[in-house]
Amino acid sequence: MSGGDYAVQGFRAAAVAAGLKKHGGPDLGLIVSDGSATAAGVFTTNRVRAAPVILSQEHITGGKARAIVANAGCANACTGAAGLADARSTAEMAARALSAAPEELLVASTGVIGAPLAVDKIALALPGLVERLSEQGLPAVAEAIMTTDSFPKLSRFEGAAGGRSYRIVGMAKGAGMIMPDMATMLSFILTDAGVSSLDLKMAVSRAADATFNRITVDGDTSTNDTVFALANGKAGTGDLTGPELDDFRDGLCGVMQELALMIVRDGEGASRVVLVRVQGAKTSEEASRAARTVANSNLVKTAVFGRDPNWGRIMAAVGRSGVTMEEDHVDISINGIPIVKNGLGMGMEAEKDAAGVMAREETIHITVDLHQGDHGDTVATCDLTQDYVAINADYRS
Amino acid sequence: MSGGDYAVQGFRAAAVAAGLKKHGGPDLGLIVSDGSATAAGVFTTNRVRAAPVILSQEHITGGKARAIVANAGCANACTGAAGLADARSTAEMAARALSAAPEELLVASTGVIGAPLAVDKIALALPGLVERLSEQGLPAVAEAIMTTDSFPKLSRFEGAAGGRSYRIVGMAKGAGMIMPDMATMLSFILTDAGVSSLDLKMAVSRAADATFNRITVDGDTSTNDTVFALANGKAGTGDLTGPELDDFRDGLCGVMQELALMIVRDGEGASRVVLVRVQGAKTSEEASRAARTVANSNLVKTAVFGRDPNWGRIMAAVGRSGVTMEEDHVDISINGIPIVKNGLGMGMEAEKDAAGVMAREETIHITVDLHQGDHGDTVATCDLTQDYVAINADYRS
Repeated sequence: MSGGDYAVQGFRAAAVAAGLKKHGGPDLGLIVSDGSATAAGVFTTNRVRAAPVILSQEHITGGKARAIVANAGCANACTGAAGLADARSTAEMAARALSAAPEELLVASTGVIGAPLAVDKIALALPGLVERLSEQGLPAVAEAIMTTDSFPKLSRFEGAAGGRSYRIVGMAKGAGMIMPDMATMLSFILTDAGVSSLDLKMAVSRAADATFNRITVDGDTSTNDTVFALANGKAGTGDLTGPELDDFRDGLCGVMQELALMIVRDGEGASRVVLVRVQGAKTSEEASRAARTVANSNLVKTAVFGRDPNWGRIMAAVGRSGVTMEEDHVDISINGIPIVKNGLGMGMEAEKDAAGVMAREETIHITVDLHQGDHGDTVATCDLTQDYVAINADYRS
Repeated sequence: MSGGDYAVQGFRAAAVAAGLKKHGGPDLGLIVSDGSATAAGVFTTNRVRAAPVILSQEHITGGKARAIVANAGCANACTGAAGLADARSTAEMAARALSAAPEELLVASTGVIGAPLAVDKIALALPGLVERLSEQGLPAVAEAIMTTDSFPKLSRFEGAAGGRSYRIVGMAKGAGMIMPDMATMLSFILTDAGVSSLDLKMAVSRAADATFNRITVDGDTSTNDTVFALANGKAGTGDLTGPELDDFRDGLCGVMQELALMIVRDGEGASRVVLVRVQGAKTSEEASRAARTVANSNLVKTAVFGRDPNWGRIMAAVGRSGVTMEEDHVDISINGIPIVKNGLGMGMEAEKDAAGVMAREETIHITVDLHQGDHGDTVATCDLTQDYVAINADYRS
């Protein structure tokens, strides 16, 4: 992965090992826009919000930002007033080093909850970090924010508007446990397109809802989940409108969707990506609820790990979700192979075929048709394996 | 366990191997009351209801029953009209063998979803089953209804009313995955006390709500969950009223609570029982919701398996539950050891103590005080281990 492939005009970035991660390696990243950028954010819905979330929500209200400081190794969550002061001081130190106002700084953290952030280590590392800033630096940041991730996650989109080409580059971390307490989903999106503050805000929320909010690994929601989008306009497109803005939105959504699926693929201990599609639901809320319930069912997820087209567990999960359904109207297929028709199993042959596909394919498509209406939704998840348990039983030790 | 310890006047029972379980062993049980008994039931809330649930709900409406036929090895769920006919024919065959009306029969099944019930095997086994009926037979039924359970679950209560002593004997199965698709919670409660139909119904629902509805292994709800209570009055107490009825209710609740905790202790792959207590909640609904969210969190459950007092995961789960809370008002303790005070960790020493207790004790008490009001609730669960994944990945194969 060459840094240049992910360069965005007017953005420089770098990462260093500040000593925040227990086992070493780069753990502190900085992304800086040349000049103020339009900024939008999406944050965790958990009532327990980490200090960097509280601070960034405050700083982003003006719709502008210059830079993002992100660290792994410590979530700076459940750290009280001292934690908030630490987040603030991180922003202030970075602002000073960049000759920016502290309010122009966004911060994000991921790692263990409840431990204090070692701001002294950040202070020591900052000068070297600023020195290394380069247009090729974004992939290094994607690597620095990894915790239990097994690969850095980057995606890009090339667009054109007003005769100028622009880029959207996104990075994310979140090793499978989407919205967990320590894997946390962080995502930073950078573009040199021009986008108004309101349009960026709407585009990012809508895209997050369609992508990051439709993946789940264990239903746990992190205290630190954060998406930042910065648009610095350096491509000279002017603020996008009309069809060009629509293209940008689609591009943004594509980038975020690719990142979301990377997160699921990198799910802790995961061996399969599972796309749960519920269609024929009475309302879109019910489609979403049913898909989420199936996607979060430990029984369904262990069955996928066992390559077992155990449709009874899928039916039971749909039934438990409480959506409008009639058992004898339900159809279920796995990777296109019908295994349930009108609520009844299609027999051993169909299940054998489905089991074969589950053994071969890396992405498992579970499709449930309720035949109650015409609403549908898809939620992406991964299987539940012994490695998931091992990773999460051992995480802090 | 001697059968006589669990004998209840006027009830006879037996179990045989009918060939319904894949790996052999007793799998068909029969419990018969001498004469009609007052009967009450509690059933799954899943929208997908197994055939035996549908039939038993129909039969129990009159508040009377003579016998229970229960099988393991096949849930007779998602089996459509044929499955309902199979349940009905099971009840009819048993009724004929007992010279009872079919409507006096209750049926319950547990096992794989979607497979047809082998009624021919049940027909063949019934005569031998009826022949073996004895007052010592209840423990044999507790054994026959086991699926992934590692031990049969029985509990009893001795009471007195109107100068006569009576007994409540309960049995249950449900190998840890409470309300799962194949472990299913079944419980049969038998008493020789006299209880009116309405009183029994109210006592059973209330007790189920306080016990079986407050345990969880993975949040999955079975299509087959069933509690039957039969009171045949053979102790000669007459229908209980006043304080004697209250004693009966308490006894019933005690029996069901012991069974509920046995289920959690026998949780699939479980190494620890976890009692999650949330107190100081604004409402009892919020106490319950927060306790359930913590108890169902894979992150909390894997941490318990890792003997890690990872309170950040507990905080994150409470925060995600959406209940009224202020982070800096939350206290958390593990087996009485305070590890969080006013939202902040109490330090490494306290965590080390808590880790030691988690390594030693078989029951882990997680207590969260929200300091928002005076409502509390407790939910029992077990830890999430690699064995859970192994059991559930391999269940059908």
